[in-house]
Amino acid sequence: MTLNPFRIFDPEPQVRQIAFELYSMVRDLPLISPHGHVEPRLLAENKPFPNPTELILIPDHYIYRLLYSQGIPLATLGIPTLDGSRVEQDPRKIWQIFADNFYLFAGTPTGIWLTQELEEVFGISEKLTTANGQKIYEQLEAKLREPAFLPRKLFERFKLAVLTTTDAPADPLVFHRQIRASGWPGRVIPCFRPDALFEINAPAWKSELTALEKASGMAIGNFRQFISSLENRRAYFKQCGAVSTDQGIESPYTHYLSASEIETIFQHALRGSVSVQETCAFQAHMLMEMARMSIADGLVMQIHAGVMRNHNRLVFEKFGINKGCDIPVTTEFTRNLAELLNIFGNDPRLTLVVFTADESPYARELAPLAGHYPALKLGAAWWFHDSLQGMLRFREQVSETASIYNTVGFTDDTRAFPSIPARHDLSRRVDATFLARQVTRHIIDMDDAQRMIKALAYELPWQVYKLG
Amino acid sequence: MTLNPFRIFDPEPQVRQIAFELYSMVRDLPLISPHGHVEPRLLAENKPFPNPTELILIPDHYIYRLLYSQGIPLATLGIPTLDGSRVEQDPRKIWQIFADNFYLFAGTPTGIWLTQELEEVFGISEKLTTANGQKIYEQLEAKLREPAFLPRKLFERFKLAVLTTTDAPADPLVFHRQIRASGWPGRVIPCFRPDALFEINAPAWKSELTALEKASGMAIGNFRQFISSLENRRAYFKQCGAVSTDQGIESPYTHYLSASEIETIFQHALRGSVSVQETCAFQAHMLMEMARMSIADGLVMQIHAGVMRNHNRLVFEKFGINKGCDIPVTTEFTRNLAELLNIFGNDPRLTLVVFTADESPYARELAPLAGHYPALKLGAAWWFHDSLQGMLRFREQVSETASIYNTVGFTDDTRAFPSIPARHDLSRRVDATFLARQVTRHIIDMDDAQRMIKALAYELPWQVYKLG
Amino acid sequence: MTLNPFRIFDPEPQVRQIAFELYSMVRDLPLISPHGHVEPRLLAENKPFPNPTELILIPDHYIYRLLYSQGIPLATLGIPTLDGSRVEQDPRKIWQIFADNFYLFAGTPTGIWLTQELEEVFGISEKLTTANGQKIYEQLEAKLREPAFLPRKLFERFKLAVLTTTDAPADPLVFHRQIRASGWPGRVIPCFRPDALFEINAPAWKSELTALEKASGMAIGNFRQFISSLENRRAYFKQCGAVSTDQGIESPYTHYLSASEIETIFQHALRGSVSVQETCAFQAHMLMEMARMSIADGLVMQIHAGVMRNHNRLVFEKFGINKGCDIPVTTEFTRNLAELLNIFGNDPRLTLVVFTADESPYARELAPLAGHYPALKLGAAWWFHDSLQGMLRFREQVSETASIYNTVGFTDDTRAFPSIPARHDLSRRVDATFLARQVTRHIIDMDDAQRMIKALAYELPWQVYKLG
Repeated sequence: MTLNPFRIFDPEPQVRQIAFELYSMVRDLPLISPHGHVEPRLLAENKPFPNPTELILIPDHYIYRLLYSQGIPLATLGIPTLDGSRVEQDPRKIWQIFADNFYLFAGTPTGIWLTQELEEVFGISEKLTTANGQKIYEQLEAKLREPAFLPRKLFERFKLAVLTTTDAPADPLVFHRQIRASGWPGRVIPCFRPDALFEINAPAWKSELTALEKASGMAIGNFRQFISSLENRRAYFKQCGAVSTDQGIESPYTHYLSASEIETIFQHALRGSVSVQETCAFQAHMLMEMARMSIADGLVMQIHAGVMRNHNRLVFEKFGINKGCDIPVTTEFTRNLAELLNIFGNDPRLTLVVFTADESPYARELAPLAGHYPALKLGAAWWFHDSLQGMLRFREQVSETASIYNTVGFTDDTRAFPSIPARHDLSRRVDATFLARQVTRHIIDMDDAQRMIKALAYELPWQVYKLG
Repeated sequence: MTLNPFRIFDPEPQVRQIAFELYSMVRDLPLISPHGHVEPRLLAENKPFPNPTELILIPDHYIYRLLYSQGIPLATLGIPTLDGSRVEQDPRKIWQIFADNFYLFAGTPTGIWLTQELEEVFGISEKLTTANGQKIYEQLEAKLREPAFLPRKLFERFKLAVLTTTDAPADPLVFHRQIRASGWPGRVIPCFRPDALFEINAPAWKSELTALEKASGMAIGNFRQFISSLENRRAYFKQCGAVSTDQGIESPYTHYLSASEIETIFQHALRGSVSVQETCAFQAHMLMEMARMSIADGLVMQIHAGVMRNHNRLVFEKFGINKGCDIPVTTEFTRNLAELLNIFGNDPRLTLVVFTADESPYARELAPLAGHYPALKLGAAWWFHDSLQGMLRFREQVSETASIYNTVGFTDDTRAFPSIPARHDLSRRVDATFLARQVTRHIIDMDDAQRMIKALAYELPWQVYKLG
Repeated sequence: MTLNPFRIFDPEPQVRQIAFELYSMVRDLPLISPHGHVEPRLLAENKPFPNPTELILIPDHYIYRLLYSQGIPLATLGIPTLDGSRVEQDPRKIWQIFADNFYLFAGTPTGIWLTQELEEVFGISEKLTTANGQKIYEQLEAKLREPAFLPRKLFERFKLAVLTTTDAPADPLVFHRQIRASGWPGRVIPCFRPDALFEINAPAWKSELTALEKASGMAIGNFRQFISSLENRRAYFKQCGAVSTDQGIESPYTHYLSASEIETIFQHALRGSVSVQETCAFQAHMLMEMARMSIADGLVMQIHAGVMRNHNRLVFEKFGINKGCDIPVTTEFTRNLAELLNIFGNDPRLTLVVFTADESPYARELAPLAGHYPALKLGAAWWFHDSLQGMLRFREQVSETASIYNTVGFTDDTRAFPSIPARHDLSRRVDATFLARQVTRHIIDMDDAQRMIKALAYELPWQVYKLG
């Protein structure tokens, strides 16, 4: 074991010592993962992972994004194409490219996570290099054949209290049900994410709608029936353990349309002749509907705002979505959320957790809003920002105005299952540093800090997501 | 006395030691409060404060905003309603809610100020908790009955050199005159804030105009007369000690209209049929007029930009303005101030002090503008940003390009009278830290730092606001 | 010698020590200046500098901008007027004003650079004050008469590996050719900057076009001929040593027009009747053309985005461009660069280096884009941001998502020739601090850090700008 026990903490000895004390209080607490993208099939089937490359590299666009930026084609990295055209198949060759370029990740969160993951999960404490690439591949491969590295064993070893997946409304949640039925006590819960159903001008919308009709067993000929079907599926998700919904949106614009306006747009969508403006208006209306439904059924409402998806058309057309080419844009909350917060934000039955990929509204908009509206909580530093500096900026820009008690703890949001403990550990170390800086400045005392570190690491997500 | 003398400073021992030395040079300098919202009546009447709750909680939306965000109704906290409907009347019960929830303020500026205020002003060094809430209430209540806790005695003990209030143009400034006439030497001066007179599409505008007519003794039937009345009242304010004007604006857009354009809009306003666009154009024109008048009469011009007022309509309609639901918005200065700065910004007779609730223009727009135009000075970190991190961000993002000598020192902007010394103390400690970080990096030497800390703590506001 | 060897580094002893070790590895490496504004005539003629004021103050708007902001007229500082009207001629009087006001620069990058320049280049270690102003002037004057202070001697002493100038396409590059022909081995290379040719609605455009016709020896009656002339001049620049082009733009909007659309706009421009909208469309199209040409001829493409030029009309009309009154504006990259990156950004033959004067897109847009597109690299912290805090913000906001290996090292961008070593030294010290903070947090080890500091100080600019 060569990971330094004081890593991440500020080097100043007083801060470091207090950070270590605070961190030690929460290091071994169970992990709550209230939002992420691990496939539930993994834990339902509980089969061995095929090989290190398919476990660690292929699902993780944080990794191949950076390799691609340095001129390495995605096909060379084995990323599957949409049309099935040939990509590199040899996992050892792909792994070697990664080993050759591992130095690129120095100082990135991916570098931090991988280093810890290799050592703590797999017992490999050498830094990955060109020279040792194949040797480490073999060590990993050997581990993956051991029973201790089956998905459920890792889940238990990671002390995952809750692992939340992300699922389409029409998803039958077969794997979630299979997990429950198996008697294995691991809590793997779905999250209701209807994005594709709200993209009414997308070519795929009609088939999404058909899937919803089928799943809900309800014909959908008008907007009212559309809402009823969604309510039906929300109830089903809740029954399968869901505690939340989620929406990925470019702009968090919220606005109620009149009954006739929304019906007109919905009919246009059914006829396949809906404009971009109508699509925006529809989505603004749907944020209102989702808030209303959350008050009714108690599911926590999440918004992930401010990312332009599939910026690189060439990559999108060849490899599909979620390939590291989603890029944030300027995002406005004060005006966009006004209507939703005015109508629902004073209602303590609503919990709205907002995530942003644009940091500039942290101090300007999000902290003042969350420091006032009872319904609003701030999601953790998200995506490009769940890094050491990104998480510190979040805490330092948000906490003075919103108080840490209006935030929700850490969200790993990952597809990379074995990286989960390292991500939470980094977050806990950052929070400990953030608090130790305040203790050593005599802004808070150790009693405050102990209460706060426990809230950040465990209690806030547990409470806010109503997991009890 | 348990407040740590080294609190707020960086924990690194060299930085801490030098920060302490610099801070010690200015700790006991008189306080200049060039902008705020303390009621002059307090110091005119000089009556005992009624009780701890009415002194500390009821006027301070920083406090009840955060309690509200955690689901505590404002009525429960005794915040008066506009229609007089019943709210909690028992100050002890309200205080107890505050005590129960004081942990929420850990790490917030309100937490820092209150801790220092309780100890240094009232001699209470225990942390407020559920258990000691009533005891501390009683200790405070006892203090408030002592003559040493009368407003004027506190003013003297706080070493307030100048306390500036915020007043409507039609205000007769009775309390300011009463203070002057009393022979008490405390300097309590008004500031001319005409916002309501520039909201020409607001229902209340007509009555504001009537009040202005009455106060100035001038009939106002056209724009020229409107301007003359304002000039008349500015002269009156100046005679009562004013050194500045102030304007709260959502966007700092500046633009001169032609004489006929502005007259047309003014006539529409008089007829009660003015559009939103006309209102914006009117306000842009009035910023130009205010600059012109400042060159004529020497009053320092202040702008507080970038806040959307009364975001929460429900709270606004029930409890009125200034209830913690004003939320900042993105604010642009480079283009918006261009016309004003082009016409007046090269004129050293003008002093324009700009405050922003949006930090992103600090380094991008405000520092480059203030580092060039002779008329422009940067107001202190404002509102949500007069916190430890907020003030450090201001100094670090602004000073390299603008130089500290184009900034104006600290502005407390508070309604909470007994918190004033703690606010200035935090600011002085932050500035000392900011400078000590440079001394220990050998960027400046102690001679520079000593000159700078005195400038920041006292000399710059004294000079910029022409208080000599 | 009184400059502290540990200056700039964090005061925390472990960080300081490691920063010093890393800095020591690169302190003496040659300087690469891939973008700047030193006049090539200086090095072609190699004459003594006239006097300290003309060497240090007159070319440096960083200096007189700040003096102007404190009410000192530019004419008093000897800044030449466009109409030749009289300004202060006595260099000693001007120098004395600077000495009287040198305290204003405490804590600014100009203060840091000048202090180091005076000591390391000129051997003056006293701080400039009112009292010693004339004495220091005389010491400097004496130095400037020594042969060791001729431009080429300084160039060699500064260890400048490459000095890049900025030149109009029609420039005959006489001085660059003269330098090459002289046998002196100093590498002074031009950079192709066509801004004035793309300002098709500016009064000066026609004469710029005529100059281009003359320089290329080609008549320009249509857009195709315009492009051919540019290609012709790019080839000439390349032949004279150029490795890059550059464009200063307010918005980085990129968009291809159809052949007939662009021809129509070009014909309007030739007739002198082109609208603002057409000018914007033309410039968006020209960014596409410049990228296409870079792929063809291999010149690195640079964009300096987000500055509104000549904000102060009065100063512009009296003194001309580049007088310290260019002010940044909000700048958007995700949407604006989308078309260019979609068409050319996956092509490894293109290198596009983007600089911004707006920091808010660092983490939000630029790091994610550069961490994905092979063609895109991030230019160094620019202009108002090449300061201690500005460079730290750049590194901390960009590196976690983009990796330092998608950035390009330091760019001094200066007109102030003798300040070049101090600027690079500050940058190397900041990078050493940035890395030492990671080493002491055990995020990277010393092997990583040593590789990274060399990359930042020398290897990345050398590789990205294809200087080998």
